[in-house]
Amino acid sequence: MPANNNMDLQLEMSRVASAVDKQFDLMLVVPDDARAQLFETMRHAAIGGGKRLRPLLVMATSRLFNVDENCALRAATALEALHVYSLIHDDLPCMDDDDIRRGKPTAHKAYGEAQAVLAGDALHALAFELLADENTHSDPFVRAEMVACLAKAAGPSGMAGGQMMDLVAETATFDLPTVTRLQQLKTGALISACIEIGSILGRVPVEGRTGLRGYAHNLGLAFQIADDILDVEGDEVLTGKALHKDEKAGKQTFLSLMGLDRAKEQAQMLVDQAKSHLNGYGEEADLLRAIAEFTVQRDR
Amino acid sequence: MPANNNMDLQLEMSRVASAVDKQFDLMLVVPDDARAQLFETMRHAAIGGGKRLRPLLVMATSRLFNVDENCALRAATALEALHVYSLIHDDLPCMDDDDIRRGKPTAHKAYGEAQAVLAGDALHALAFELLADENTHSDPFVRAEMVACLAKAAGPSGMAGGQMMDLVAETATFDLPTVTRLQQLKTGALISACIEIGSILGRVPVEGRTGLRGYAHNLGLAFQIADDILDVEGDEVLTGKALHKDEKAGKQTFLSLMGLDRAKEQAQMLVDQAKSHLNGYGEEADLLRAIAEFTVQRDR
Repeated sequence: MPANNNMDLQLEMSRVASAVDKQFDLMLVVPDDARAQLFETMRHAAIGGGKRLRPLLVMATSRLFNVDENCALRAATALEALHVYSLIHDDLPCMDDDDIRRGKPTAHKAYGEAQAVLAGDALHALAFELLADENTHSDPFVRAEMVACLAKAAGPSGMAGGQMMDLVAETATFDLPTVTRLQQLKTGALISACIEIGSILGRVPVEGRTGLRGYAHNLGLAFQIADDILDVEGDEVLTGKALHKDEKAGKQTFLSLMGLDRAKEQAQMLVDQAKSHLNGYGEEADLLRAIAEFTVQRDR
Repeated sequence: MPANNNMDLQLEMSRVASAVDKQFDLMLVVPDDARAQLFETMRHAAIGGGKRLRPLLVMATSRLFNVDENCALRAATALEALHVYSLIHDDLPCMDDDDIRRGKPTAHKAYGEAQAVLAGDALHALAFELLADENTHSDPFVRAEMVACLAKAAGPSGMAGGQMMDLVAETATFDLPTVTRLQQLKTGALISACIEIGSILGRVPVEGRTGLRGYAHNLGLAFQIADDILDVEGDEVLTGKALHKDEKAGKQTFLSLMGLDRAKEQAQMLVDQAKSHLNGYGEEADLLRAIAEFTVQRDR
């Protein structure tokens, strides 16, 4: 990757991160009533920190099709709201029981379990409220299609299904195809939804989405392998979360099944494949290409 | 209420209950993979039991406007999916910590906390997936409007906000206006959404919904006062859940603030007001009238 692409990516990442923070700040004004603590918990989890990879993917895909920036940003924020909800619930004592997320105490550590459950639930609903809002897109077909896409990615045949497989993985021994399926559902489904929603905003017909879907599929797997590698080789300060969790839980991962060297090779191969799906696009897809490289080179 | 209306209501309630059970049964086919336990938990919570008041309200409102029965039933099932998700999370140890719901063990008692959290999350997403599905309504405007309505009712300015106030109520002392606001958010918002979604399916313009919104508002409050009365006077076998919870938790309720006699009067007055909002409708609204009466006369 040329140095200027890398600089563009860093710039774009921080630009999207600021814009998403600002959207959350505007939407989550703390009310002067007994709901205040709920909004505080939502703000704690949603504002500040994180790579904002999912909103970045929505923005980068939307840009291929000259989507209005404000529409794309609102949809991007919805995707991040859904992601943040999933992190809050995933961190709960009954789930992964994590204390640190994005370099801050997890929601239940800071505000208690009940508020964490509620803040996750509220962000879940907020994601759909944003996508269905007339201010996000004037065409109801686009709004309904985005909602359908996200709901499917979040539900029992998407992220929630993947989380269930992850619970089962604590006691069962999964083979590589099953771990692949688990990760496709747990993280891949939402990553794919980001790119799909960018395409929906761009009014790309389903038959025109094949390349982008291929990109999303490979990107999701590369991202997860890189996450597994970070879990073993990463720095807890940089990643802002507890590491070595899979090993302690005795879970099969890409790493445990393939070994470190093959996992790294595989991740880079998936990135190359992801980029090859973008061959039909010119430099307007350079941001998506840079994101793919970042996915496996990141330290957080 | 004439006896035949009561019989019609009983018949309609059991018809809707069966139809909703059948919808869930079709949607939640247990897959032959590691997600099986998630679907089992969802089925446990969603199928069988409950008054199915929310789906009944969608069906009864839709009928005023000759909405296709299958469309209405799918939307009705979405509303019940959202309600069931809220019950699962509300029953969690960190929330109300309940062991029995609808005469069965609560989801976390039967399947553990982690699966209960996930099953709630999955039903939450499923509700939006159903509303945004082309098979529920062919017009994307109707689908997007239904999603927007439900998301708002479920989020921080609706049900989740009410749940937060309910948490605060454990330690704060609320006055009657604050308890009223709490209940409007916690249960009223979703009850209103049922009637609103029936109106959306019926393509009633916003300016034509005033009467139905008045009905919904009064019905929601009457329902909650009746619930408070049942919490004190009810039978745990008939209601299928633990009672005397508010008293034990030291929470202010309509009952504690008004006393039993005034609460009963108030509930009946609200029912009469609810029915008066239907004066513009003929006998096609008899089911909505019967539901209003049932709301305060029920023993479960």
